[in-house]
Amino acid sequence: MSRTVIHGGLVITASDEIHADVLVEGGRIVALAAHGTDAAESWNADRRIDATGRYVIPGGVDGHTHMEMPFGGTYAADTFETGTRAAAWGGTTTIVDFAIQSVGSSLREGLDAWYAKADGNCAIDYAFHMILADVNPSSLKEMDLLVAEGVTSFKLFMAYPGVFYSDDGQILRAMQKAAGNGGLIMMHAENGIAIDVLVEQALAAGHTDPRYHGDVRKVALEAEATHRAVQLARVAGSPLYVVHVSADEAVAEIAAARHKGLPVFGETCPQYLFLSTDNLAEPDFEGAKYVCSTPLRPKEHQEALWRGLRNNELQVVSTDHCPFCFSGQKEMGRGDFSKIPNGMPGVEHRMDLLHQAVVDGHITRRRWIEIACASPARMFGLYPKKGTIAPGADADIVIYDPAAEQTLSAETHHMNVDYSAYEGKRITGQVETVLSRGELVIDGRKFTGRAGHGMYTPRATCQYLD
Amino acid sequence: MSRTVIHGGLVITASDEIHADVLVEGGRIVALAAHGTDAAESWNADRRIDATGRYVIPGGVDGHTHMEMPFGGTYAADTFETGTRAAAWGGTTTIVDFAIQSVGSSLREGLDAWYAKADGNCAIDYAFHMILADVNPSSLKEMDLLVAEGVTSFKLFMAYPGVFYSDDGQILRAMQKAAGNGGLIMMHAENGIAIDVLVEQALAAGHTDPRYHGDVRKVALEAEATHRAVQLARVAGSPLYVVHVSADEAVAEIAAARHKGLPVFGETCPQYLFLSTDNLAEPDFEGAKYVCSTPLRPKEHQEALWRGLRNNELQVVSTDHCPFCFSGQKEMGRGDFSKIPNGMPGVEHRMDLLHQAVVDGHITRRRWIEIACASPARMFGLYPKKGTIAPGADADIVIYDPAAEQTLSAETHHMNVDYSAYEGKRITGQVETVLSRGELVIDGRKFTGRAGHGMYTPRATCQYLD
Amino acid sequence: MSRTVIHGGLVITASDEIHADVLVEGGRIVALAAHGTDAAESWNADRRIDATGRYVIPGGVDGHTHMEMPFGGTYAADTFETGTRAAAWGGTTTIVDFAIQSVGSSLREGLDAWYAKADGNCAIDYAFHMILADVNPSSLKEMDLLVAEGVTSFKLFMAYPGVFYSDDGQILRAMQKAAGNGGLIMMHAENGIAIDVLVEQALAAGHTDPRYHGDVRKVALEAEATHRAVQLARVAGSPLYVVHVSADEAVAEIAAARHKGLPVFGETCPQYLFLSTDNLAEPDFEGAKYVCSTPLRPKEHQEALWRGLRNNELQVVSTDHCPFCFSGQKEMGRGDFSKIPNGMPGVEHRMDLLHQAVVDGHITRRRWIEIACASPARMFGLYPKKGTIAPGADADIVIYDPAAEQTLSAETHHMNVDYSAYEGKRITGQVETVLSRGELVIDGRKFTGRAGHGMYTPRATCQYLD
Amino acid sequence: MSRTVIHGGLVITASDEIHADVLVEGGRIVALAAHGTDAAESWNADRRIDATGRYVIPGGVDGHTHMEMPFGGTYAADTFETGTRAAAWGGTTTIVDFAIQSVGSSLREGLDAWYAKADGNCAIDYAFHMILADVNPSSLKEMDLLVAEGVTSFKLFMAYPGVFYSDDGQILRAMQKAAGNGGLIMMHAENGIAIDVLVEQALAAGHTDPRYHGDVRKVALEAEATHRAVQLARVAGSPLYVVHVSADEAVAEIAAARHKGLPVFGETCPQYLFLSTDNLAEPDFEGAKYVCSTPLRPKEHQEALWRGLRNNELQVVSTDHCPFCFSGQKEMGRGDFSKIPNGMPGVEHRMDLLHQAVVDGHITRRRWIEIACASPARMFGLYPKKGTIAPGADADIVIYDPAAEQTLSAETHHMNVDYSAYEGKRITGQVETVLSRGELVIDGRKFTGRAGHGMYTPRATCQYLD
Repeated sequence: MSRTVIHGGLVITASDEIHADVLVEGGRIVALAAHGTDAAESWNADRRIDATGRYVIPGGVDGHTHMEMPFGGTYAADTFETGTRAAAWGGTTTIVDFAIQSVGSSLREGLDAWYAKADGNCAIDYAFHMILADVNPSSLKEMDLLVAEGVTSFKLFMAYPGVFYSDDGQILRAMQKAAGNGGLIMMHAENGIAIDVLVEQALAAGHTDPRYHGDVRKVALEAEATHRAVQLARVAGSPLYVVHVSADEAVAEIAAARHKGLPVFGETCPQYLFLSTDNLAEPDFEGAKYVCSTPLRPKEHQEALWRGLRNNELQVVSTDHCPFCFSGQKEMGRGDFSKIPNGMPGVEHRMDLLHQAVVDGHITRRRWIEIACASPARMFGLYPKKGTIAPGADADIVIYDPAAEQTLSAETHHMNVDYSAYEGKRITGQVETVLSRGELVIDGRKFTGRAGHGMYTPRATCQYLD
Repeated sequence: MSRTVIHGGLVITASDEIHADVLVEGGRIVALAAHGTDAAESWNADRRIDATGRYVIPGGVDGHTHMEMPFGGTYAADTFETGTRAAAWGGTTTIVDFAIQSVGSSLREGLDAWYAKADGNCAIDYAFHMILADVNPSSLKEMDLLVAEGVTSFKLFMAYPGVFYSDDGQILRAMQKAAGNGGLIMMHAENGIAIDVLVEQALAAGHTDPRYHGDVRKVALEAEATHRAVQLARVAGSPLYVVHVSADEAVAEIAAARHKGLPVFGETCPQYLFLSTDNLAEPDFEGAKYVCSTPLRPKEHQEALWRGLRNNELQVVSTDHCPFCFSGQKEMGRGDFSKIPNGMPGVEHRMDLLHQAVVDGHITRRRWIEIACASPARMFGLYPKKGTIAPGADADIVIYDPAAEQTLSAETHHMNVDYSAYEGKRITGQVETVLSRGELVIDGRKFTGRAGHGMYTPRATCQYLD
Repeated sequence: MSRTVIHGGLVITASDEIHADVLVEGGRIVALAAHGTDAAESWNADRRIDATGRYVIPGGVDGHTHMEMPFGGTYAADTFETGTRAAAWGGTTTIVDFAIQSVGSSLREGLDAWYAKADGNCAIDYAFHMILADVNPSSLKEMDLLVAEGVTSFKLFMAYPGVFYSDDGQILRAMQKAAGNGGLIMMHAENGIAIDVLVEQALAAGHTDPRYHGDVRKVALEAEATHRAVQLARVAGSPLYVVHVSADEAVAEIAAARHKGLPVFGETCPQYLFLSTDNLAEPDFEGAKYVCSTPLRPKEHQEALWRGLRNNELQVVSTDHCPFCFSGQKEMGRGDFSKIPNGMPGVEHRMDLLHQAVVDGHITRRRWIEIACASPARMFGLYPKKGTIAPGADADIVIYDPAAEQTLSAETHHMNVDYSAYEGKRITGQVETVLSRGELVIDGRKFTGRAGHGMYTPRATCQYLD
Repeated sequence: MSRTVIHGGLVITASDEIHADVLVEGGRIVALAAHGTDAAESWNADRRIDATGRYVIPGGVDGHTHMEMPFGGTYAADTFETGTRAAAWGGTTTIVDFAIQSVGSSLREGLDAWYAKADGNCAIDYAFHMILADVNPSSLKEMDLLVAEGVTSFKLFMAYPGVFYSDDGQILRAMQKAAGNGGLIMMHAENGIAIDVLVEQALAAGHTDPRYHGDVRKVALEAEATHRAVQLARVAGSPLYVVHVSADEAVAEIAAARHKGLPVFGETCPQYLFLSTDNLAEPDFEGAKYVCSTPLRPKEHQEALWRGLRNNELQVVSTDHCPFCFSGQKEMGRGDFSKIPNGMPGVEHRMDLLHQAVVDGHITRRRWIEIACASPARMFGLYPKKGTIAPGADADIVIYDPAAEQTLSAETHHMNVDYSAYEGKRITGQVETVLSRGELVIDGRKFTGRAGHGMYTPRATCQYLD
């Protein structure tokens, strides 16, 4: 077995900051030893990585990506190959992507299709959530099988009627099922039925620009759906994980539920923390680059999200990575914002943007690792393999240079998309080297990985419910 | 330097559960290595401790004790010698005790007196908070010096008029000082002025039994003072740590403040989690054993406290250890509950009672370690020396047998007090072996420590405010 | 014009208690004068009614009745003739009943059918709300016409899928319409989609008794729908009136909305104030008598409703009178609680039960008149004709004996239904004499009215939105 | 007995708007009759007042004035003579002023002194609250006597240490007393102990301008004291009336208490509804004109106050009239804002400013009368003599021209103070004629009253607690 030593760095986990060398053996972390001790010095290794002045952090776990996702007649531009490579560049070593059930088909068919898409193509490890698009007695029964097989979370949509939408009865039944089998219900919480009325009215009024996407998807309708999901989960006795929380009032609903002791969790994404409706209002259809759902909100909402992350009212930051090129894809919605494919690129920048939040004083270093690595790993049953630096864990390790300066740009990013949502944004901190199960996939800012290194990783059930 | 290896156990920290051996060298943890790996096997050591089937956890940090405290004409029955020995028996390896300023004297005098009391007597490490009993221009100025010297937290009382009580102006001034120097204000939050009226009226009405102690110290008056302390801290721009929270409404005040983003923290104690006004109402003056302030509450409050601990609305469990013997001390209050010395023994049982909470399903194992070890260490500036198992940390380590059965009793406990508040309570889990800075102080349930081993440990400022 | 003088009584309105004689002339109140003054003594009259020791109060306005309503293959047992006669016996002189749009038909057709049912049959004045069962472009357009014609409120259902249910898009559109034309949206706020799942599951589990009706219609699902209705109204910019609020959490949602300044109103009914799930659990299928939706709740909810009425978080008490005989009607649900017709008799007892609440100390006399007479009159645009005793108002007057004792019973009540929900309940206070537009309809507890006296009364828009 | 008829006007009460003539006989209202009816036409009268196109409203009840109040070495500039005359000009026919206990003296002495000041000097009726400045066993005992004699409300101060301040124990004792004797505790809710620290610090920092008065009296410290008063009242089981609420957070505390069912009431004043810290910041010491406590708040708080008035979270608008001339009095605080006498003129403008609020759409006409006339009358036990237009009530009647235009100014006002806080403000609506117990005190905008007409009016206990 090959042995790697990472020496001289500051190891950061969700709870600890340790001046320690790390010994990796055959894909796993086997030991940590304080710098300069006999224990550390005695290690012989095939490879020694100098991390002096660097952070040694767990590889990021991005719990929400959509590679090659079909949407509105097109596909998200990143394949599992390009998307996971970009993830690796950004210090993320595990993604949990969404397999999709088609209406009229089984979960099995959907899941197998996604297994096939990813198989042999990924640069980093991956797992799947399952999107339930057709809740019926048969698909409900299949949920048990999927949990047993390591697909332990199920996403439902209160938005997108006619596509992914489930009604409250379907949601309740799926939640009841999850209450029994340990599955975690993930919810896109927007009142899509009401939103579609507003969309129709906006278009009829000639309001076709991208910024109306933000107008019609009202804060009140995200808060409404969040509250409704909480109440349904309460009736079902199931846990609830609300994806891509963007509005202050939605955070308040989650906080209120948690204060009452309900097992309710919330995720937000970098776009809600760093971007706003100002972007959606950019002229010349540029706003289309920022069209995603839930939508970007006015700047004032950002503080509520940061506060929620500090308070543990929100537990996870994922990307909801779902890139569509401006040219040819986003442009499908010129003259009709409702035709703009919903989604933004982001899998590459999450770790950096959150480090910037450390620099800016929004969160501590430990909380950075918690919301980006440890909590998603625990939330989705990947712990202790993923999400921490500890003996026994997978050697998914990032050597992070906290002092490097970089500028985000479509010219330099590695995602397969023709624009950056953060074009020109300056960031302090950069990924230098990345190990995935002990293998170098990024080495001093060179990609040394390969499609097919990444392995499918079955998951345990949510580890916040122990 | 002597070397110890603890092998075969499950290392538990605030965020991780690791099947690893631990190498200790000269008082510090130097390495962790996965069981059975070459790295682990290669360690030679002077002493090997078999932790198979055991937890290997950080020594407990009890952030709230009162050894030898003068109160109502008597003294808390545990000296630093007996009290820290009992703490060690219970798996606690650090206490933060309260030095007391006397009215009319300086902080310096109070602190020096406590240095002297503890010096050479402690079995485990110790540090001091400072009780401000006389806030005036001179003592305010001294606060800066104390922070610089490692006494970084200051307790104020909204209760006990004429003894420790500070008025709102004094509190505001001390908070303003803390806002500037990084100190943490700890608050006994009860409206003592109003309570004293109720005490007088209760006694006048012939209500002299211990249970009236609980009656007069109303939930509304704890909630009131908590809210007031939060508002004063908000005006001062200072953090606030509310000690011994016992009432559901007080938890709600803290939760509301945190939801607004204020740096407000809350501590509770095992007595509020496991005991209730039912105990205060025990006949034959037995209720006096349970007289402490804030008082025990009706059983219904316990669930709010557990929920607060799970939600991180409360961050720390300390003991407020302040034992008075039933015979001769508690008995001073026969016929007048207001003369019963306030305080209960507990320093020995905190780790066990909280492990029982794990067994009972109230909290997870990681949260046990967080609220009992890691959070108090960070809260009081002792991290990363204390509160975790990681290379570089002090080798304060407990080998904990999660399957052992024990029965708490005054006959077997090691605190210098003639009763147990938990007499006869059966507990699953027991401390087996304890290391303090690498030295065995409890070895297979034998005390092998000594008075004087424990060292005074100056503290950094609160590490939750990074 | 005939003249009546009511002398010697205590006139009570929503804001005043006046020792005055009342002069009625040709259907209207023309003057009030203090007892014994020249002004009072100078009135000559055709009829003098001695109200010494009595209250002289406005006739009750019952804003929520369902005479002859079709439900589940049967009809509410009271016709407009029998129901309005019973109302008169109980001191109610105006009802606002619900005309119903059938799915596939126009509002016009529904309204005309109800005009026809009531025409010539009523003992007291009446008006109509409109139930929207089929919200579509055409029925939305008709709303304007109805408002213009005096049908100014529209009821929507979040319950009863496949019958009255509207989805959130239909609700939003109707609210938008109301926001423009001054109409008031009345909402049955229960998540019927989720409830129907629970109904199916309960029946499948063999839970067929009436008490399961209360089990499946969960508090959380009333609170959910209430919150959702508030958010949709907020988006639409419309007012909202929530009918038959029964759960403490629903009151809290309304209170929260009002605290934010939203024009949200709430109604409760005597059955929620005086009855509980204990009644639903009565053996031998007796519980069926108490099946209505929203359902009766556990007793603890009553205090929240009383508090809401005192605080003006709830504004109106109506009856939701919708009686089905136990024999032959309620019995349709033996073996399947979901087949029990939903509804209870009550139009006769509202004024008495609320007077009992005055006696019991829940509300003041003025608040009694406000929630039973003045507020419904203002809410539904009937003021100042109805709801008060003042010159210019219709002479709808009740002489009420506050000291009389009566026992409610099916044997003595006047509703066309074979049971009483309050069988055997003793009440202090009783209607003695009732005038409707100056004519005696109850005279010293004899019915002297007639079918056809009651006139249809077009309504202005909600007068709480001035 | 002289008879007056007011004909042709629109009578407005807290609950009704009536097109009626009003018959007054010997100081009391004896009858109302609809315009043009025989009943109305038959009245012969000594005096007929044409109110066509006018409102006929109850005379205002100002529950909070301080005539000739000693403060900081000077006296409020309005005597009972000048102040009540100005009140009459503004349509107020009853004031409840504050008698003051001096420290070291009895309530009796204070009350007798105020009886003497007012006796023979008032143009309108008056009553007294009692300020408790020295709560001790003897003054507590006196409270019973005062309640019996018609002084049924007692004001306590959480502000002004060393002057009016009571500590929480004194407050609790007074509340307990009130809980027993039916008295109403009125509270100046600001944490004066903390504020005095901030005052001292502001002055030390050279912040001496009037605007610092607003800075130091923080919103958080008004909210704090409000919460504390609520909790103390809860412990005592007494009602609570919070005077001059100015901050949004204080409204929220009152609303929360009321939602819980506690008998807590709130008053605000026109200055908080129409003025703001912008006024306090006026240059050249002009800000001193607006110095009062609680202080004016930033404009954003106004909406919370209006909302509270609409929602009945606040029940009463009084003036806290306490005028000090700019010249010679306010000027005492040049160079030290803390020496500026606290108080503003306002008794003349309350009815007009609140009518302006009707015109502006903040409140309805009925609510105008409720918060300015009916609610204060009920709150302070003056109903039904005062606060309404109904047979039996005192003939305190205002003929109000809702279409008149006026401009407020020190040049035209009748208060004995050299500035107007509303200089130049244009108002729609004006008092035309005022009757006090049937006598004309303002007749077509001429003062026809006299010192000594006003009678002392003993009060019943709070009528919101029936």
